[in-house]
Amino acid sequence: MTNFDVAQLAHVELFTPKPEESLKFFTDYMGLQITAREGQSVYLRGYEDFYHHTLKLTEGKEAGLGHSAWRASSPEALERRVASLEKSGYGKGWIDGDLGHGRAYQFVTPDGHKQEILWEVDYFQPAENQKTLLKSRPQKRPLMGVPARRLDHINLMCRDVAKNREFMSEHLGFKLREQIVLNNNEEIGAWMSVSPLVHEVALMNDQTGNSGRFHHIAFWYGYPQHLMDTADIFVENGIQIEAGPGKHGVSQAYFMYVMEPGGNRVELFGDSGYLIFDPDWKPITWRENELDEAIIWYGSPLPNEYFLYGTPDRAVKVPVK
Amino acid sequence: MTNFDVAQLAHVELFTPKPEESLKFFTDYMGLQITAREGQSVYLRGYEDFYHHTLKLTEGKEAGLGHSAWRASSPEALERRVASLEKSGYGKGWIDGDLGHGRAYQFVTPDGHKQEILWEVDYFQPAENQKTLLKSRPQKRPLMGVPARRLDHINLMCRDVAKNREFMSEHLGFKLREQIVLNNNEEIGAWMSVSPLVHEVALMNDQTGNSGRFHHIAFWYGYPQHLMDTADIFVENGIQIEAGPGKHGVSQAYFMYVMEPGGNRVELFGDSGYLIFDPDWKPITWRENELDEAIIWYGSPLPNEYFLYGTPDRAVKVPVK
Amino acid sequence: MTNFDVAQLAHVELFTPKPEESLKFFTDYMGLQITAREGQSVYLRGYEDFYHHTLKLTEGKEAGLGHSAWRASSPEALERRVASLEKSGYGKGWIDGDLGHGRAYQFVTPDGHKQEILWEVDYFQPAENQKTLLKSRPQKRPLMGVPARRLDHINLMCRDVAKNREFMSEHLGFKLREQIVLNNNEEIGAWMSVSPLVHEVALMNDQTGNSGRFHHIAFWYGYPQHLMDTADIFVENGIQIEAGPGKHGVSQAYFMYVMEPGGNRVELFGDSGYLIFDPDWKPITWRENELDEAIIWYGSPLPNEYFLYGTPDRAVKVPVK
Amino acid sequence: MTNFDVAQLAHVELFTPKPEESLKFFTDYMGLQITAREGQSVYLRGYEDFYHHTLKLTEGKEAGLGHSAWRASSPEALERRVASLEKSGYGKGWIDGDLGHGRAYQFVTPDGHKQEILWEVDYFQPAENQKTLLKSRPQKRPLMGVPARRLDHINLMCRDVAKNREFMSEHLGFKLREQIVLNNNEEIGAWMSVSPLVHEVALMNDQTGNSGRFHHIAFWYGYPQHLMDTADIFVENGIQIEAGPGKHGVSQAYFMYVMEPGGNRVELFGDSGYLIFDPDWKPITWRENELDEAIIWYGSPLPNEYFLYGTPDRAVKVPVK
Repeated sequence: MTNFDVAQLAHVELFTPKPEESLKFFTDYMGLQITAREGQSVYLRGYEDFYHHTLKLTEGKEAGLGHSAWRASSPEALERRVASLEKSGYGKGWIDGDLGHGRAYQFVTPDGHKQEILWEVDYFQPAENQKTLLKSRPQKRPLMGVPARRLDHINLMCRDVAKNREFMSEHLGFKLREQIVLNNNEEIGAWMSVSPLVHEVALMNDQTGNSGRFHHIAFWYGYPQHLMDTADIFVENGIQIEAGPGKHGVSQAYFMYVMEPGGNRVELFGDSGYLIFDPDWKPITWRENELDEAIIWYGSPLPNEYFLYGTPDRAVKVPVK
Repeated sequence: MTNFDVAQLAHVELFTPKPEESLKFFTDYMGLQITAREGQSVYLRGYEDFYHHTLKLTEGKEAGLGHSAWRASSPEALERRVASLEKSGYGKGWIDGDLGHGRAYQFVTPDGHKQEILWEVDYFQPAENQKTLLKSRPQKRPLMGVPARRLDHINLMCRDVAKNREFMSEHLGFKLREQIVLNNNEEIGAWMSVSPLVHEVALMNDQTGNSGRFHHIAFWYGYPQHLMDTADIFVENGIQIEAGPGKHGVSQAYFMYVMEPGGNRVELFGDSGYLIFDPDWKPITWRENELDEAIIWYGSPLPNEYFLYGTPDRAVKVPVK
Repeated sequence: MTNFDVAQLAHVELFTPKPEESLKFFTDYMGLQITAREGQSVYLRGYEDFYHHTLKLTEGKEAGLGHSAWRASSPEALERRVASLEKSGYGKGWIDGDLGHGRAYQFVTPDGHKQEILWEVDYFQPAENQKTLLKSRPQKRPLMGVPARRLDHINLMCRDVAKNREFMSEHLGFKLREQIVLNNNEEIGAWMSVSPLVHEVALMNDQTGNSGRFHHIAFWYGYPQHLMDTADIFVENGIQIEAGPGKHGVSQAYFMYVMEPGGNRVELFGDSGYLIFDPDWKPITWRENELDEAIIWYGSPLPNEYFLYGTPDRAVKVPVK
Repeated sequence: MTNFDVAQLAHVELFTPKPEESLKFFTDYMGLQITAREGQSVYLRGYEDFYHHTLKLTEGKEAGLGHSAWRASSPEALERRVASLEKSGYGKGWIDGDLGHGRAYQFVTPDGHKQEILWEVDYFQPAENQKTLLKSRPQKRPLMGVPARRLDHINLMCRDVAKNREFMSEHLGFKLREQIVLNNNEEIGAWMSVSPLVHEVALMNDQTGNSGRFHHIAFWYGYPQHLMDTADIFVENGIQIEAGPGKHGVSQAYFMYVMEPGGNRVELFGDSGYLIFDPDWKPITWRENELDEAIIWYGSPLPNEYFLYGTPDRAVKVPVK
């Protein structure tokens, strides 16, 4: 049953084996702002992200997802979701919090991705020279790089898309917006959201047979030109553009995928796709014969690697389809 | 108290004393699509509007709002809102429906703007040659004009902004997102929404002392270039551009205002502004000394007429501030 | 020796075996304007092309170049060029003219592409309802399709690029701007111009071993968004996008290549690339190890077909490299 | 008589009473690159400017033009122009050169603006970490600010536009492209070029009755989005936007005018306007009744100050029209 208990994607933690190069990528090229450093982590946000941070970049042996965190719609909503998660068997328990937020309930997806849900957040406080007259913007637009505006969504690779989709729906209230279903009725992609965005989370079949891997984090720009601008910067500075700029059929996103130096895939989202306001939305199902348009509406095609590479990088466990 | 019972702006009816010229404006320049004609009305929609129509253009003696209609989030939500409206004293009663939708409950704002709330809608059905492979798009992109994608919001002029704002909040669940408050504490503008959009409805003080007038309807393009493209077309074809393209501080909208030949003000929305996902959003209040940036962040200034002209066009009743 | 005797590309004639479909492509999707029809030909132009026509579309058994025409800088310049062409052995003689221009001197490139050079041109005269207040624009911006602004350049496939490059330089004054040279010193691409544009003509090695074939005609839009807009239209209407939108290294062009229904390749040029004002410009030479960036700076890669398919479509004569 | 002896605008020297703030403006916001510092001057260029510098920023008591420099088409062309200038009575004599260029011949316009013409230039040499794979780009795209690509044109205020226009035509070969002529036949604006650009120099009537003042320097971006991006930065950082972004009728430029902290007006040119390839171009004359569209085709209107303020800032000498 649909509920409104989850409001948004609050933050994502990524591991990187090359913390300095990764940090340079996010700050110098994508214009993310550093809020804090603690231990082996740097806390970052886009200049229109309102909270303390939306990206926690933590040194690790290999690239991959630390965890992602969802903000509930209210303290009561949080309690309802925790009760549901506890019953699910995927709940882990409460933590006291972290820099930038209060207590949070930890859980995993059926595939094993670490997640949190929380209510209490700290808001970003600009320094005097960061204050702007634009009252809906938490700080001035940065001068460095081509600055991303805010965190948008995550994409999780799953051994079993349908199972994880059901979990996100049942326990967190995510609505299915679009999906890809093969002729053998296997669901290989699902795009889900709690808002008019087409997705705050996408689930994508891991064709290598691994579980719990991470596909990408997406930051939002909103203007196509900015993807051309960052593309220029990436090519000149040795950052690998995996695909794009181009336009997806699914979600209508104007996209670009790049590999940050630590090995995590990052998407830059260059327009607003479309928004879903219809309360009676029927999920869109793309069938096998419609895959071409679903994946690439126009522009740069996706290489094979897009469907196989995730983080952490793992050997193939099953014959790739 | 916040609720989620209203989902979106469903459609708007406008009166025009020049039906043919108005129709040419919306179809040839803004690329709206005709779904039906009945009596003195033509039913139109943007090519990414999913319902039967989002604009009903009706011949009338003078320009102005016929009515605007809100879609509830569910049949139960509709019943809850109607019960609340009936208690408010502003309810009018049920109608059987119209082309494109089923039964609807009519009411007025305290200022007198005619409104409806409904659940049952007909979805647009494309003709064979309108069908597209892009499954989130109800029909092909039109070839005529620079086509608007969807209806976005309305702006209502009010003698008393605060009173109407409270009504929209209490009975329909609209959340206040931004407002302008003068030094004498008079609230002269309020932007409200039921979704992450900053507004599906704006309320703006009618400095002429009239009640119940209409300020503008806005259609969404999402790409700044398209406002430059339509500006070109408008200048060459004798359509008056009142202001823009430029950028508002409030809502961060990249805007252009034009007068359609029948006399109604139409806004073209050229980017996505910003979206509000924070469930604990504190309304932004712009004070009198911050008005300049609130109104125009950069670009084309608004002429005086912007604050005085509404439809129907009426004589000034009170000394203009 | 450099001279200034050739001023610009004046018009191009293309053959099409599907005249109606080709015409629909150029008018309904790319917004070209029809000036005249005569015999098996339709005369077209972009809305910012000043002359009678820039594209002559002629029914033919197969796709390909009819001829391309260069405008001299003055009547005297024309005489000088004709004298030089006559000495070259590639001159054919004068014709009285065609719709839209006066006498013209015909010649061929060493590879056999039919060419003309002329001085006398007719200027486009707008109908009353096409007149615009924008005095540098010969007519109003069209409402149909996403209108191209003007003819930009042609690309000719050559069995021997160097030989044709020398001919264009010696007899017509074209300056070499960029070139691609393989490790074996074979020149496989040359971009030449008589103006600050990087090229009005490109010469490209025909790897199939054929002679005198045509690679593409390019129309200029100048705004990247318009390539995304036309891409949308092309995908929905069954027009094959061969590559793009993307960005070339050579010429810095934001490009898209499509196949018009008659089989000719058409490029849409979506920004202004860069311009060359340096009178002492040293041609840029891209070597074999720099080919990737030369061809695609970012975005959509070029398929193999791009390097093999030309018009008329011919069997491969030599082993493809 | 038309000649091709002048090739381009090579560089401009501006005086500023606030050298540090001016430098911050050009480097941090507009992304210009510092090549050298010497004495009271800093030498700068856009990242796609090929020469040693295109802007020399010199400390001075008040804002204004130091000089502007034109590059001849060849050593012989330089000699021809110098001979003509010497006969004109406006020649001043040779200087040995400056950082970045060799000997140059100095002269003034009839209105008194200091000018140079030269042939020998030094090319910018990138440092190792500035080198880019894009061979038509002299260095990597900068990461700071929204970087301007190259110098575009200058606008000189003149007591007598016609007289200065004739001088630029007769002695330097500039062609008149567009002009504004009042009903009393006074020419109040002239746009002239030696290339397909509509202007490398504009001459504009100084309504205050002063002579030899400077109106603005223009840098070229080529993409409309970048004017919106810099507008954002300017508003947030206290830089006064005088007008724009908007579109001129004359030259079809997408423009924005800002005041750098030292008091000089700077234009940012956000698209490519239109280009003139017709060798028989007839100058466009805008008459008094066509002024509105000439000045602003759409968008932000120009304030009165635009027509009165120049550098150095001077008292009004004559009744303003």
